[in-house]
Amino acid sequence: MSGTVGQVIKCKAAVAWEAGKPLVIEEVEVAPPQANEVRVKILFTSLCHTDVYFWEAKGQTPLFPRIFGHEAGGIVESVGEGVADLQPGDHVLPIFTGECKECRHCKSEESNMCDLLRINTDRGVMLSDGKTRFSKNGQPIYHFVGTSTFSEYTVIHVGCLAKINPAAPLDKVCVLSCGISTGLGATLNVAKPKKGQSVAVFGMGAVGLAAAEGARIAGASRIIGIDLNSSRFEEAKKFGVTEFVNPKDHDKPVQEVIAEMTDGGVDRAVECTGSIQAMISAFECVHDGWGVAVLVGVPNKDDSFKTHPMNLLNERTLKGTFFGNYKPRTDIPGVVEKYMNKELEVEKFITHSVTFSEINKAFDYMLHGKAIRCIIRMDA
Amino acid sequence: MSGTVGQVIKCKAAVAWEAGKPLVIEEVEVAPPQANEVRVKILFTSLCHTDVYFWEAKGQTPLFPRIFGHEAGGIVESVGEGVADLQPGDHVLPIFTGECKECRHCKSEESNMCDLLRINTDRGVMLSDGKTRFSKNGQPIYHFVGTSTFSEYTVIHVGCLAKINPAAPLDKVCVLSCGISTGLGATLNVAKPKKGQSVAVFGMGAVGLAAAEGARIAGASRIIGIDLNSSRFEEAKKFGVTEFVNPKDHDKPVQEVIAEMTDGGVDRAVECTGSIQAMISAFECVHDGWGVAVLVGVPNKDDSFKTHPMNLLNERTLKGTFFGNYKPRTDIPGVVEKYMNKELEVEKFITHSVTFSEINKAFDYMLHGKAIRCIIRMDA
Ligand SMILES: NC(=O)c1ccc[n+]([C@@H]2O[C@H](COP(=O)([O-])OP(=O)(O)OC[C@H]3O[C@@H](n4cnc5c(N)ncnc54)[C@H](O)[C@@H]3O)[C@@H](O)[C@H]2O)c1
Ligand SMILES: NC(=O)c1ccc[n+]([C@@H]2O[C@H](COP(=O)([O-])OP(=O)(O)OC[C@H]3O[C@@H](n4cnc5c(N)ncnc54)[C@H](O)[C@@H]3O)[C@@H](O)[C@H]2O)c1
Ligand SMILES: [Zn+2]
Ligand SMILES: [Zn+2]
Ligand SMILES: [Zn+2]
Ligand SMILES: [Zn+2]
Repeated sequence: MSGTVGQVIKCKAAVAWEAGKPLVIEEVEVAPPQANEVRVKILFTSLCHTDVYFWEAKGQTPLFPRIFGHEAGGIVESVGEGVADLQPGDHVLPIFTGECKECRHCKSEESNMCDLLRINTDRGVMLSDGKTRFSKNGQPIYHFVGTSTFSEYTVIHVGCLAKINPAAPLDKVCVLSCGISTGLGATLNVAKPKKGQSVAVFGMGAVGLAAAEGARIAGASRIIGIDLNSSRFEEAKKFGVTEFVNPKDHDKPVQEVIAEMTDGGVDRAVECTGSIQAMISAFECVHDGWGVAVLVGVPNKDDSFKTHPMNLLNERTLKGTFFGNYKPRTDIPGVVEKYMNKELEVEKFITHSVTFSEINKAFDYMLHGKAIRCIIRMDA
Repeated sequence: MSGTVGQVIKCKAAVAWEAGKPLVIEEVEVAPPQANEVRVKILFTSLCHTDVYFWEAKGQTPLFPRIFGHEAGGIVESVGEGVADLQPGDHVLPIFTGECKECRHCKSEESNMCDLLRINTDRGVMLSDGKTRFSKNGQPIYHFVGTSTFSEYTVIHVGCLAKINPAAPLDKVCVLSCGISTGLGATLNVAKPKKGQSVAVFGMGAVGLAAAEGARIAGASRIIGIDLNSSRFEEAKKFGVTEFVNPKDHDKPVQEVIAEMTDGGVDRAVECTGSIQAMISAFECVHDGWGVAVLVGVPNKDDSFKTHPMNLLNERTLKGTFFGNYKPRTDIPGVVEKYMNKELEVEKFITHSVTFSEINKAFDYMLHGKAIRCIIRMDA
C-alpha cells in the first residue's frame, strides 16, 4: 500500500446525493490524512439505523452529497503527522464518537463523552481544517460522524479508531463499532446485573438483543424481552431471552405486568427503543430498594421523562448511557477480545450479507425490519 | 430497673390529644414488651419536621390521641420473648424504620427498605397484636412510626433499635436517629463524592446541613448551598458550605446558574427540600458524563418529576434515598462511632434544649424556623 502514501487515492464510494434516494457507487478522490488523521482501507462495513435516519433526513438537518457508514472494520493505509498510536497495516474499527485522551471526560474513569470528539451528526467536515477529504471532480462530499465507511478508503481522526487484535475476523467484528457494543455495554458497564438477577430489555432490535446478550454473559437468571412487535420474539430466544411481553397484549401498563411476573420488579432494566413510554416503563418496572434502569434509546426532541418522585425515593436508580459507556480506544479492543475468547457471540447478529454494489439492498432489509445486521463486503 | 420487668410502668408522656393542639404531659401506662419487643427508658429526644407534620395532620390521616417522637436516645429497661440482641442496660437509638434481617431487602446489600418494618406513618399500633402499649385510664393511646419517644418509657420492635456504644453521650447522639443520618447518608452512601469534587446541596434545613456535613467529611472541594431563604446561609458556613445560591436572586433557572459557576455542572447534587422544582434542578445541575443527583425530600402526592431524557443519556445518574440508605441496626452504630472518633460533628446541629415539661416550646422553635435541632431532656 506504500505507493499511495501522501497521494490522493481514487476509489469507489457509495455516495448519497439526495435525502432518501438510493446511494450511487461513484469513483471519488480521497485526500491524504492530515495531522492526527488516519487513512483506512475499509474491508467490511455494516448498516445501522442511524445511517438510515440521516439518509432519510426527515427530522435531521440534511447535508448532501454525503458518504454514510459508521460500523466497519479496516486496515490502516497511512497516517498523518503526529499519529503515534497507529501505523500502516494495523487493524482498526472506526467509531462514530472519539477519545482524545486529554479532556476531562477522557480523563474521568466514568465518562466516554469526549469534549473534542463526541459524536457530531451535523458536522460533515474534518475537525482540523473544516474541510472534507472526499471529492468528486473537485466537488466536496461530506463526511458522516467522522467515519464515512461506505467507501473503499476513508479518512478518520486517530481518536475515532480502535486498534484491535489483527487475528480478529473483520467480517464479524466490524459490527462491534456501534449498536452491538452500545447494547452490550449498557448491560455490562451500566446496569451491571449480578449473577442470578433478572433483567428486562425493552426493544428487541439490534441494540436490545445486544443488551440481552450482555445479560446472558452476566449470568442473569431471567431475561424478559419486551417489544410491540411479537415477531421479534422467536429471534430473541437465540439471545438468551427467556420470557416475552408485548405491551399490546395487556390492559394495564407493562411495568405492572412485569412487577407481577417478578414479585415486585426486575433487578435491572435496559431500554433500547427510543420510545419515551418505554423509558418510563423501564424505570418503573425495576424493584424498589436496589433496581437499576438504564436508558439507551435516542428520544424525540420534545419528549419529557415523567415519573412520581416516590419511585426514586424508594431507592431505584435511573441512568442513561452513550455507546454503552465504552471509551472507544481504551475499551473496544477488549470487546473484540470477548468475542475472540468466545464469551461474546457475534455471529448471531449477522443475518445478511451483500456486495458493495448491492448496498441499497442493505437499506431495504433494514427498512423492512428483516436484518439485525447486514454486512457489506467492500472487495466483492 | 429490674423491679419493673413484666409490670405495667406508670410514667409521664406528652400526649397529642388533637391535631395541632399543644401536647399535654400526662401520666400514662406502658405495658410490658411482648415477643420481639423492647421497653426503653428514653433519656433525650429531639423534634423533627415529621412529628410536626403528623401532629398538624393537614395532609396526613389524623390518628389521635397519639404519642409522637422518633429521634431519641435511651436505655433498655426490659425485653420481650425472643429478643436475643439486646438486654437491659444497653444503650439504643430508636429508629422510625426497621431492619428485620430476614426479608429480601434486609438481605440485599443495597436496600434498607425492610418489608416487615419499613416506616408506616398510618399505623398507630404494635405489629404483633395490632394493639397499643400505651393507655390512660384504659383508653389506648396510639404509637407513632413505632417509636413514640415523647414518653419516659416506650415499647419498640427490636428491629427498630440500634444498639450503640454506651460511651456515646445520649444527649448528643440522639439526633442521629433520623434527619441528620438521612442527610449524611445521602451524601456518604449514595452520592459518594470523591475527594476534591464539587457538591451542591439543595435545602439548608437539618437534612441539607447534614448532607453538607457529609460532603465536608468526604473532602469535597466546593460545597454549594441552595435555599430560597437567604437567612440560612450564615449558619450553613459552619457546615462547610463554601458558596450560596438563592434561586430568587436569578432570572434563569438555578441549574444554569450552577452550571456556569462550575464549568458545566457539579459532580454531585443532593436535594433536601421536598420541592419538586428543587428535585429537577438538582438533577439538571450535575455534570454530564459522571454527575450523580440524589433525592431525599419527601414530595407531594401529585408531584411529577420531569426532565428531558437527553439529560440522562448524557450519562447522568439519578437516585433517591430513604434514611440515607443506612440499615438501622447494622449501620447506625457506625454513625455514632464517626461522632466518637471526631469525624462527624454533631454539636453544631443542636441549637436549642428544653425540659420535657417545655416540649411545646420545641414545636414553636421548629414552626418559626429557629432550631436545627432542639433536645428535649426527659429527666428535667
Ligand atoms: N445511546 C447510544 O449510544 C445508541 C447507539 C445506537 C443506537 N441507539 C438507539 O437505540 C435504540 C434502538 O436501536 P435499534 O437499532 O435496536 O432500533 P430498532 O428500531 O431496530 O429496534 C427498536 C425496537 O423497539 C421496539 N419498540 C418501539 N417502541 C416500543 C415500546 N414502546 N415498547 C416496547 N418496544 C418498543 C420496536 O418494535 C423495535 O423492535 C434507538 O433509539 C437508537 O437510536 C443508541
Ligand atoms: N428520605 C428520608 O428518609 C427523609 C428523612 C427525613 C427528612 N426527609 C425530608 O427531607 C426534606 C428536608 O427536611 P428538613 O427537616 O431539612 O426540612 P426543612 O424544612 O428544615 O428544610 C428545607 C429547606 O429547603 C428550603 N427550600 C424549599 N424549597 C426550596 C427550593 N425550591 N429551592 C431551594 N431550597 C428550598 C427551605 O427554605 C428550607 O430551608 C423534607 O422533605 C423531609 O421530609 C427525608
Ligand atoms: Zn476527550
Ligand atoms: Zn450505529
Ligand atoms: Zn427486613
Ligand atoms: Zn425525622
